[in-house]
Amino acid sequence: MSIATRATELLGVEHPIVLAPMGDVSGGELAAAVSRAGGLGLIGGGYGDANWLTREFDAAAGARVGCGFITWSLARQPDLLDVALERDPVAVMLSFGDPAPFAERVRASGAVLLCQVQNRGQAERALDVGADVLVAQGTEAGGHGYGSRTTLTLVPELADLVDRRGSEAVVLAAGGIADGRGLAAALTLGASGALVGTRFYLAAEALSTPQARDHAVGATGEDTCRTTVYDIVRGYPWPEGHTVNTLGNDFVSRWHGAESELQRDLGNAAAEYRRAVAERDYDIANVFVGQAAGLVDSVLPAADIVTDIADRAEVILGGLVR
Amino acid sequence: MSIATRATELLGVEHPIVLAPMGDVSGGELAAAVSRAGGLGLIGGGYGDANWLTREFDAAAGARVGCGFITWSLARQPDLLDVALERDPVAVMLSFGDPAPFAERVRASGAVLLCQVQNRGQAERALDVGADVLVAQGTEAGGHGYGSRTTLTLVPELADLVDRRGSEAVVLAAGGIADGRGLAAALTLGASGALVGTRFYLAAEALSTPQARDHAVGATGEDTCRTTVYDIVRGYPWPEGHTVNTLGNDFVSRWHGAESELQRDLGNAAAEYRRAVAERDYDIANVFVGQAAGLVDSVLPAADIVTDIADRAEVILGGLVR
Repeated sequence: MSIATRATELLGVEHPIVLAPMGDVSGGELAAAVSRAGGLGLIGGGYGDANWLTREFDAAAGARVGCGFITWSLARQPDLLDVALERDPVAVMLSFGDPAPFAERVRASGAVLLCQVQNRGQAERALDVGADVLVAQGTEAGGHGYGSRTTLTLVPELADLVDRRGSEAVVLAAGGIADGRGLAAALTLGASGALVGTRFYLAAEALSTPQARDHAVGATGEDTCRTTVYDIVRGYPWPEGHTVNTLGNDFVSRWHGAESELQRDLGNAAAEYRRAVAERDYDIANVFVGQAAGLVDSVLPAADIVTDIADRAEVILGGLVR
Repeated sequence: MSIATRATELLGVEHPIVLAPMGDVSGGELAAAVSRAGGLGLIGGGYGDANWLTREFDAAAGARVGCGFITWSLARQPDLLDVALERDPVAVMLSFGDPAPFAERVRASGAVLLCQVQNRGQAERALDVGADVLVAQGTEAGGHGYGSRTTLTLVPELADLVDRRGSEAVVLAAGGIADGRGLAAALTLGASGALVGTRFYLAAEALSTPQARDHAVGATGEDTCRTTVYDIVRGYPWPEGHTVNTLGNDFVSRWHGAESELQRDLGNAAAEYRRAVAERDYDIANVFVGQAAGLVDSVLPAADIVTDIADRAEVILGGLVR
């Protein structure tokens, strides 16, 4: 028995579980492990580094994987999409920016086009440009996001939107899903599967550091915070309104809400941040996980995570019907 | 067939659906209608008005109902609890403040004690004082709330907490649940039912005005905003960190983010607000609904709402298992 959905059919996978393409975390080994366990692994293209992307596609060692891009960053170096498409990815996910400039090339390549959206307007735009999959991301997600819509309300609202438009697009739920309960909830809400980040941040094959994982394993769902301080200190020009969900720590406590002061002291703060990253000091450096951190208390091989999420979702859905 | 849970057993109801005790909205007629349809209606005790409470218990006309209080406000006029307990309520819900001073009297009366919580710390406290039910409320809920936890992650985290403590407490999910998809999701997440506000704001028996309903019916999930401006203008001393989720409008656009200016111009703004309430002008006055407004597009009798949520949840849960 397994959970067959429109997403498993479209993506050609056994379980409706997709690895979020987390920058610097979702490398080729993790993506391959998720895919080989019956989900779909997406390599995190991040801010764009052709060498990194090539290396990580190599590390996937021929597994059926895809990749994801930060769209506004990809727009500054559009050739990076070719690097990805040359590897014949199963799927390409575009997040945080207008997908229009890239949608046609992705679709023409035969890859499934996933567009991550945080609200209805973005969803309308993604459908307009022919997205095969809407990834409906709520504010509880780790890493970057936009606005305050939560997964529980965004997913059914976008499922209704897709229906009303007579679209064939498939909806995946993203944000807050770390176990079989979350996947089961995603399915009841009208999604055909889930995109999972935080749980895989704590996969054995992830590129997250052991020290970062230690911080995340000990966290509750209240320990994350949406902020811009890490983008300021890293000098990334995120478009207005985007924030990142990260574990709270000394650095966040000091600068969140004091962004003007941070801008004034940027040289020192940036040096401190870079040093902390090098030293793996997560009282200063970033651990981009979401509220689902409160549901995760172990590091496991990705295959075990995929199997556990899928099996539990099935048991839960089966057990609730008398 | 129907969905039997620990909540239906504890509350003595057919469907695991509880009316949120919305101040000025959840009156006796609505509460009674929800209870008679097989859910549990809670009258909204609000900031506390003995005459109002008496009138609304009378309006429930003997139906099995309960009521809810804003706990910090109840602490200023604790005798109000007696007014409620004299009516032999099925349940009393305490929200937004320390339940300790009232917990024992509620339990001694035989009423089921519901404590609404927005994070783990509040949940620990509620369990410490003997709550029978934890109402796990996410930030997508309408009306007042605290912090940024979302329903999708808070419910399973609190379900785990209850298990770990070996507690017998039952968890209800609150925030973002307006239809059978949401109830089904609540159950998969580990809740035994749902507390529903926004959907009943748009019930025929609610005390919401037709004009306020018109605004809510036309809203999407992006049209709400968490703010303090209505508490400032109403002069309610909400404890630090509490915000209210309300439909955006001219008044919110003008003052949200400009709270210091609002304080300086409070006399004029308060007069304008009071006039708008009297005139039912919701470009100025408040419509306290949550993100689930985007899932609701009609005003219906409460009984139809209860039946529809319960029936759809069953169909969804049944249909997802092959």
